[in-house]
Amino acid sequence: MAEIQVKVLYDFDAQPGSAEINIQADEIIVVTRQDVGEGWWEGKKINGEVGLFPQAYVEVVQESGPPEMPPPPLPSTFTDGRQPDYNTPDSYQLSVEKPAAKVMTDDWDETRDDEDTPSSKLNAISQDSKQPGGNFGLHTANREHGHSGEAKFGTVKKSFNRFSTFVKSGGEAYLLGTIKTVVSDADRIAIVESDDGPVWAVQEHPYTCSVTSPKKDSKFRGMKSFIAYQVTPSFNMVPVTRRYKHFDWLHGRLEDKFCVTPVSPLPDKQVTGRYEDDFIEKRMAGLQLWVSRICRHPVIANSEVWNHFLTCADEKRWKQGKRKAEKDEFVAGSFFLIINTPENPLSVKDVEEKVDSFNKFVKHMDDSVRDGIQTMLESCKKHRGPYKREYQKMGDVLIDLGNSFSLDTRPLAQGLTEAIRHTGKTYNEIAQDFADQPRYDLEPLIEEIHEYKGILSNFPEIIELHKGALKRVKDCQKLEGEGKLNEADASAIARRGDVLSYALLAEITHFHSERILDYKTYMQNYLRGQIAFYRKIADKLEGSLAQYDQA
Amino acid sequence: MAEIQVKVLYDFDAQPGSAEINIQADEIIVVTRQDVGEGWWEGKKINGEVGLFPQAYVEVVQESGPPEMPPPPLPSTFTDGRQPDYNTPDSYQLSVEKPAAKVMTDDWDETRDDEDTPSSKLNAISQDSKQPGGNFGLHTANREHGHSGEAKFGTVKKSFNRFSTFVKSGGEAYLLGTIKTVVSDADRIAIVESDDGPVWAVQEHPYTCSVTSPKKDSKFRGMKSFIAYQVTPSFNMVPVTRRYKHFDWLHGRLEDKFCVTPVSPLPDKQVTGRYEDDFIEKRMAGLQLWVSRICRHPVIANSEVWNHFLTCADEKRWKQGKRKAEKDEFVAGSFFLIINTPENPLSVKDVEEKVDSFNKFVKHMDDSVRDGIQTMLESCKKHRGPYKREYQKMGDVLIDLGNSFSLDTRPLAQGLTEAIRHTGKTYNEIAQDFADQPRYDLEPLIEEIHEYKGILSNFPEIIELHKGALKRVKDCQKLEGEGKLNEADASAIARRGDVLSYALLAEITHFHSERILDYKTYMQNYLRGQIAFYRKIADKLEGSLAQYDQA
Repeated sequence: MAEIQVKVLYDFDAQPGSAEINIQADEIIVVTRQDVGEGWWEGKKINGEVGLFPQAYVEVVQESGPPEMPPPPLPSTFTDGRQPDYNTPDSYQLSVEKPAAKVMTDDWDETRDDEDTPSSKLNAISQDSKQPGGNFGLHTANREHGHSGEAKFGTVKKSFNRFSTFVKSGGEAYLLGTIKTVVSDADRIAIVESDDGPVWAVQEHPYTCSVTSPKKDSKFRGMKSFIAYQVTPSFNMVPVTRRYKHFDWLHGRLEDKFCVTPVSPLPDKQVTGRYEDDFIEKRMAGLQLWVSRICRHPVIANSEVWNHFLTCADEKRWKQGKRKAEKDEFVAGSFFLIINTPENPLSVKDVEEKVDSFNKFVKHMDDSVRDGIQTMLESCKKHRGPYKREYQKMGDVLIDLGNSFSLDTRPLAQGLTEAIRHTGKTYNEIAQDFADQPRYDLEPLIEEIHEYKGILSNFPEIIELHKGALKRVKDCQKLEGEGKLNEADASAIARRGDVLSYALLAEITHFHSERILDYKTYMQNYLRGQIAFYRKIADKLEGSLAQYDQA
Repeated sequence: MAEIQVKVLYDFDAQPGSAEINIQADEIIVVTRQDVGEGWWEGKKINGEVGLFPQAYVEVVQESGPPEMPPPPLPSTFTDGRQPDYNTPDSYQLSVEKPAAKVMTDDWDETRDDEDTPSSKLNAISQDSKQPGGNFGLHTANREHGHSGEAKFGTVKKSFNRFSTFVKSGGEAYLLGTIKTVVSDADRIAIVESDDGPVWAVQEHPYTCSVTSPKKDSKFRGMKSFIAYQVTPSFNMVPVTRRYKHFDWLHGRLEDKFCVTPVSPLPDKQVTGRYEDDFIEKRMAGLQLWVSRICRHPVIANSEVWNHFLTCADEKRWKQGKRKAEKDEFVAGSFFLIINTPENPLSVKDVEEKVDSFNKFVKHMDDSVRDGIQTMLESCKKHRGPYKREYQKMGDVLIDLGNSFSLDTRPLAQGLTEAIRHTGKTYNEIAQDFADQPRYDLEPLIEEIHEYKGILSNFPEIIELHKGALKRVKDCQKLEGEGKLNEADASAIARRGDVLSYALLAEITHFHSERILDYKTYMQNYLRGQIAFYRKIADKLEGSLAQYDQA
């Protein structure tokens, strides 16, 4: 690669102690590496200083509008004086992206446990749903990107910080055509037009997957214990054993690779009580929900890393597959290289309108879902507290009346006395039924809606990514109009922008069709539970009423 | 009647300003009248002073144990210097007993209105049910005996005051055979044995009576307005027009005459809002309950005063009948003169046990009823407040979710959106159903139980009356054993004591059989209301569930 000089457009202050370098506007830097990834380039300043800087802060030939923000900070491995291994760009990229890079030592870090949130699932939901609306419902509980605190998603909405999701994802590198690689047809994924808009090509062999049989197991002669689940895909019915941290690793891989797909967060972690049956059941139910959703995603369900997770039972092959996944070429921005879309170009304005409208949808739904979870959690509490108490009071009052009536010991008085006591006991039973009922309808509904809250939390970042791409495309069109970019390059960039738009639109279509199916099922199940509940109450009271026939 | 000298056994201090005289132990008094009634005799002291004293505080020939208390205070007519008309003992007795004596002016006192309790019915019930248990649930709201404050029933339990219900009722005069009168066979009322114990002879022509068509009317050219009800007995279906105060007058007569019968209190009075439809409806329902219960009492249902109330439509005849009722010879103690009982004598011990056991029953039931009303009133509030709110919140949350889903405007998304909104509206409807439901089941139950609270409130006084009578009978038996009373007199007294016991036992039997029938009906109606309510909820949810079939 010939020497490339760039001119700095905007001042950039390096993170102290990192491999970054300070650069100042108008400074000239010689680029020493372009394949660092994550929007970072390496360069040498005139004073001889070498280090990383955000590619978007410089221009090679011509100006290209101010960048929205610098790339994300470098991982902590850069701060302890070690130099990154530039010879393995893919793995480096991974290590920049995720602490999962630690996994590259090829041994699970046993000191880092599966759990880190010291609260029960419903507590976690409860806390989560209490977040103020200004946070746009961003769900951080399951994300451990290893970035410094300022990279929290919660801040994305408030002010554009320097970690542009677009740049970070490598999307820009793809868009500008700086990623060169060969894609085999077998790897290609298609987006096609449908009545509902662009969709991922239909999954050819839909299947399901079960998560069952949680079993406490241990390692290191019992020093380290954990729960192992049986994961069984329906296409072969061969169970594999997986721990929460395997799911966690997988989740990281999927988020890396499918950067416009809103991968559901995993069920929350917790430190205390994680071997208690109730927690294990809840976590398993959460993992089941998660796995089921992945199975329904036409792209992920057919991905190699997912299939490796679902089917690999051999320890050695598992590690090989894991390493391969971590070195996957087609992750993040590069993933778009393998997408085939319809030929017809998209109207930027049209796409912007669609995405904008979807963004509004997401905001509104996120608010509804947050309020809904809050209200439903309170309702669960009310069922276990006040509702139960009220019905119990009615029961106690009737039992007491029956007791006072029992002082009339004549046989003819007994029928009524017993009937009233029976009614009292029935109300006490109904009290307990009120306390128990949320478990059968409201809690599952909350879990399901909570899963959606997690899915929704991905969209702001995805939409920002797409917005950045569209902006770059528009900038290039402008440059072309000014004769500063040749038509071929500009149209190639527009074409690649379309791929990104197609992918996002396909995800939106997929989201909506999932949402419609899911909420139909959720509501049907909830209503069936409620109907059964009220019928049960009526039936019990009917049984009590019959007691009076003999009274 | 030969001059009778009595020796004073206990000091008695006259009520200042009354016709009473102070008497001191061992003092000798010449009796000038024995037929004053209410346990009072008139006498002349050695110093020439003439006045009333409690018969129980003196002895004629021999000692007869200390009396439990003096007779009730004399009415206010004695305090303004007027001398009582001793020539009309019956009317005098009434005037001692009740302020209803005022009615003797033969004109309704229009300045005293129908109402005097400034609270709504449910408020009155609520306050009432909050009385501490120590009050034995005594219900004073409907009683206007015109006694001074110390005569309140609330104090009966705490210490025996001087207004012995036994003496007051004239029961002692009857027991000792000092009431001489001729009873025609037509006036006689029979008590017979049954499997359930002594019962009033069966009512030969049972009938019902309706209270309907409340109508605002006025007198004195509209200066004085009131509500008139149509009272229609089923035996002739001829309606008569009656006001609340006619009921009130009747209630007084019944309480006077049937002193071992727990006559239900009338529905509570109130000053404000008494012409409001809701209050009028509630009062009418209360009067209907009251009238229905009277119709089911075999003695009262056949009484002259009651029949006069039910049938007299002519103004002039009404006044005549009213005056006749107020002069009725066979009220209070004298009422026992007209009772025919089975021949076999009762065992005092046996009767005491039965009455004692019933007393316990009454106490326990009164407590249950008080707690029950309190709990049920709270439940009504909960239905209108928290229950309604909770279901409404669920409705609102779903409507909001539907609204957010409506942002997906594609036709295929509409089915789910509408179904979810429908479910939200259904929950809002159910919220209103929760608020409305108590009107259909819980409020009627409270009214019914409240009526029983009123009935129960009569028993402590009735039981005291009976206790006093039994004590006197036992005293006489003792005197006979000591040769101080001849056998004929003693057995006549025992016989009259049995009549009192039979009457009370018949009332207890009647109470229990009413209670068993009533509570069976109450509970059946309540449960039917509840069952219909929960089925309605289930049906509404079922209707909402069906919306998802097309979604």
